[in-house]
Amino acid sequence: MFDLRPVGYVIGLLVVTLGAAMLVPLAVDVWAGNGHWPVFAQSAIVTALAGGLIALACANGAGAGLSLQQTFLLTTGVWLVLPAFGALPFVFGVTEARAVDAMFEAMSGLTTTGSTVLSGLDTLPAGLLMWRGLLQWLGGIGIIVVAMVFLPELRVGGMQIFRAEAFDTMGKILPRAAEIATRISSIYVGLTGLCALAYLGAGMTPFDAVVHSMTTIATGGFANSDASFSAFGPAVQYWAALFMLLAALPFVRFVQFTAGTARPLLRDSQVHGFLGVAGVVVLLLTAAQVVREGALAEETVRGALFNAVSILTGTGYASADYMQWGAFAALVLFFAGLIGGCAGSTSCSIKIFRYQLLLASIRARLARINAPHGVFEPRYQGRPVSEEVMNSVIAFFVFFVVTLGVLSVALSMTGLDFVTSVSGAATALANVGPGLGGEIGPTETFAGLNDAAKWMLVFAMLLGRLELLAVYAIFTVTFWRA
Amino acid sequence: MFDLRPVGYVIGLLVVTLGAAMLVPLAVDVWAGNGHWPVFAQSAIVTALAGGLIALACANGAGAGLSLQQTFLLTTGVWLVLPAFGALPFVFGVTEARAVDAMFEAMSGLTTTGSTVLSGLDTLPAGLLMWRGLLQWLGGIGIIVVAMVFLPELRVGGMQIFRAEAFDTMGKILPRAAEIATRISSIYVGLTGLCALAYLGAGMTPFDAVVHSMTTIATGGFANSDASFSAFGPAVQYWAALFMLLAALPFVRFVQFTAGTARPLLRDSQVHGFLGVAGVVVLLLTAAQVVREGALAEETVRGALFNAVSILTGTGYASADYMQWGAFAALVLFFAGLIGGCAGSTSCSIKIFRYQLLLASIRARLARINAPHGVFEPRYQGRPVSEEVMNSVIAFFVFFVVTLGVLSVALSMTGLDFVTSVSGAATALANVGPGLGGEIGPTETFAGLNDAAKWMLVFAMLLGRLELLAVYAIFTVTFWRA
Ligand SMILES: [K+]
Ligand SMILES: [K+]
Repeated sequence: MFDLRPVGYVIGLLVVTLGAAMLVPLAVDVWAGNGHWPVFAQSAIVTALAGGLIALACANGAGAGLSLQQTFLLTTGVWLVLPAFGALPFVFGVTEARAVDAMFEAMSGLTTTGSTVLSGLDTLPAGLLMWRGLLQWLGGIGIIVVAMVFLPELRVGGMQIFRAEAFDTMGKILPRAAEIATRISSIYVGLTGLCALAYLGAGMTPFDAVVHSMTTIATGGFANSDASFSAFGPAVQYWAALFMLLAALPFVRFVQFTAGTARPLLRDSQVHGFLGVAGVVVLLLTAAQVVREGALAEETVRGALFNAVSILTGTGYASADYMQWGAFAALVLFFAGLIGGCAGSTSCSIKIFRYQLLLASIRARLARINAPHGVFEPRYQGRPVSEEVMNSVIAFFVFFVVTLGVLSVALSMTGLDFVTSVSGAATALANVGPGLGGEIGPTETFAGLNDAAKWMLVFAMLLGRLELLAVYAIFTVTFWRA
Repeated sequence: MFDLRPVGYVIGLLVVTLGAAMLVPLAVDVWAGNGHWPVFAQSAIVTALAGGLIALACANGAGAGLSLQQTFLLTTGVWLVLPAFGALPFVFGVTEARAVDAMFEAMSGLTTTGSTVLSGLDTLPAGLLMWRGLLQWLGGIGIIVVAMVFLPELRVGGMQIFRAEAFDTMGKILPRAAEIATRISSIYVGLTGLCALAYLGAGMTPFDAVVHSMTTIATGGFANSDASFSAFGPAVQYWAALFMLLAALPFVRFVQFTAGTARPLLRDSQVHGFLGVAGVVVLLLTAAQVVREGALAEETVRGALFNAVSILTGTGYASADYMQWGAFAALVLFFAGLIGGCAGSTSCSIKIFRYQLLLASIRARLARINAPHGVFEPRYQGRPVSEEVMNSVIAFFVFFVVTLGVLSVALSMTGLDFVTSVSGAATALANVGPGLGGEIGPTETFAGLNDAAKWMLVFAMLLGRLELLAVYAIFTVTFWRA
């Protein structure tokens, strides 16, 4: 078997970082004067100490770079270990959460899923709300780095199509990969700042503006109120829709944009495809609502726009109880959640580029049916797509659909009803947040589910966030033999 | 554009054949003395005349064999035109069906779907019941021929993997393709006869035994009673389960078996996979029912066995109202319907061999992840699978899933609820028969749906039966340009 220490070393350092991040909610609680800060002091000490010990224990194995196996293990390991420590404040704090609930909340945070088991959010200590926002925000930037650096390297889910591209076209502007990561982070911080300012200007309190801007740009969906975004006015909702859309675009294009070239952003097939789909989903939902209400009220259009964008981008805020909008709206939102945003953003799910690649493949296939002796290869962004990328995309799609089916059945086995099982599996796997139906719908929480179902959903969030194959690969026998 | 006449000629001849087939229910009604026979006389005359005129009009274009485009058009054309004529007895007869209902019933028959818009089956004239059975029986043998000869030629849905195989291994036993078709038909007739004898022995009336044996071997699912198979005793239900399973196996293996070689049947990966899946589905459903009932009663096990086999094979009989069995049973049956039986049988849906091929592809891909420089090609039945077959299978899978999603949304747009929309789309596309929920569940009919929904389902049955791509291909621009 290969050396586990380099993996442990990096994970240890990241756990220490997470412990340091707990100083932020600690400071918030001190500032709020609610007496809740010792929870974060405790959590930070436990986390930092544990992380330090892990890193020390593995330190003499670190240094020489990571093998493929080690990289796989690191990717999954990070998203397994960090939630365990991120869960501590929910256990130690006023929420007094049991292990399963704390783990659910932390995993939902770090994977930017946004399903919650907590209610009475409006009365929670500010520090805990900040911690939920911070988990999503850190998870968001974490996943962009993983998606840009790790997944292409691991050749998982077709993400390798962005390897050459990101580093090639970026190479002309920015010489080094580390600088790319820095620039991406600046964009991430910058967008979050802009979003916070917009929310502030539209009437949010400074605290709400900061926390919600973090969960918006992470397409996370945690809110500070049980009412989610129906707690806010029209202006806030419009700004939120705009920033959710921006957060679902490829961040590398923003880097290029701020470096002075708007062209890559404007000519990106993913961006075109995503905005097109967003337009269609918003239009379908608006039309359905207008027909239903019998009038074209601003509130109707805004409700359709906000919730369509929220689900399509995988954010998961709700500004209305769309379970009351009928089966058509529910189905449109269900499938929108299975589409998702652009690769290289914080949004998850199957993603636009995979549908585009599958479509290109099928188009090439139909052309071949019509002219059996012609040569037709699928193209994307004007370039031919390698067989390997196409196979990866297909493996991802099949795995996603089959996992969704198996997970739905497994959930129903714990006693959940049909709609809760299917929509719960989908919302966890696609990291969207809310499900459908009376139990886990947009106005409900996941608190009432049984423990077995919660653990399954925790695993599903992890699977979905890491594009399935990165996790599945480590379950194969040959993986450990290599 | 290419010459349409050779297509019209074959379709015309098949319409004449369908008209001739109407003499069977005519004879049944005469024998029953119910005075309903003129309906079939009228229908037969209209059908035979129309078919004759079509064939005559196209006769001088016939002869030289079919091009690829013509073969595509013929395949879809047959399954569009024959139902239109097969619908006539429902329009002319006591059912006095409107166009949409008659077309629904006939399409459901010829595609062996088995969803019905008729109720009061127990009091229908014998001729009409015979006609429903005959539509499914003719549709069943028709689809085996299409699947064995046409689809491999059209290289649709990965069916080409059976081209070489069928003709190679068969070649050693039977020299000519026409003889293959004859042998397959003999098996089909033989199995139907055996099934009828079994039903007769188990207590069915001769008429019921004949009609139900036809709809069993066609995995069609039309029954002579609103109560479906709950109208019959345990012995009939066990026999039905056995014959449904047999009808979902590759018929070419039976040909080899009767020619003296059991080996191909016993060593077929599809057969192993299918029986394995059947075992798991039956076990899951039985376990769920035993837990539910708290006792291992014969009736419980039989109910689970019968309905699991009925849905997995895509037959669609019901011996119990399994909507009362809870969400787990509903989900297991829902996904079982999306698995289906073996290629080269009368059963439809995604089919076992496609899952096996997708699994082989993913296994090869995982192996490659673990050892990036190794060469791993997917294998099936011990042979490497060509890139082209794999792509076809994948295109099929993606098309199936996406069509299912779009169709669900479209159905909900006509006002159907969530479960009815999704399960209705699935049951039509997979040619299973019953849906889920209170509207189209196992004890209900499709009569209450609105016309728009019915037409969508008619199209979905056609799409599913012809493996989607055979139909989609003719909607492309390049198809007509070729
Ligand atoms: K989310
Ligand atoms: K059927």
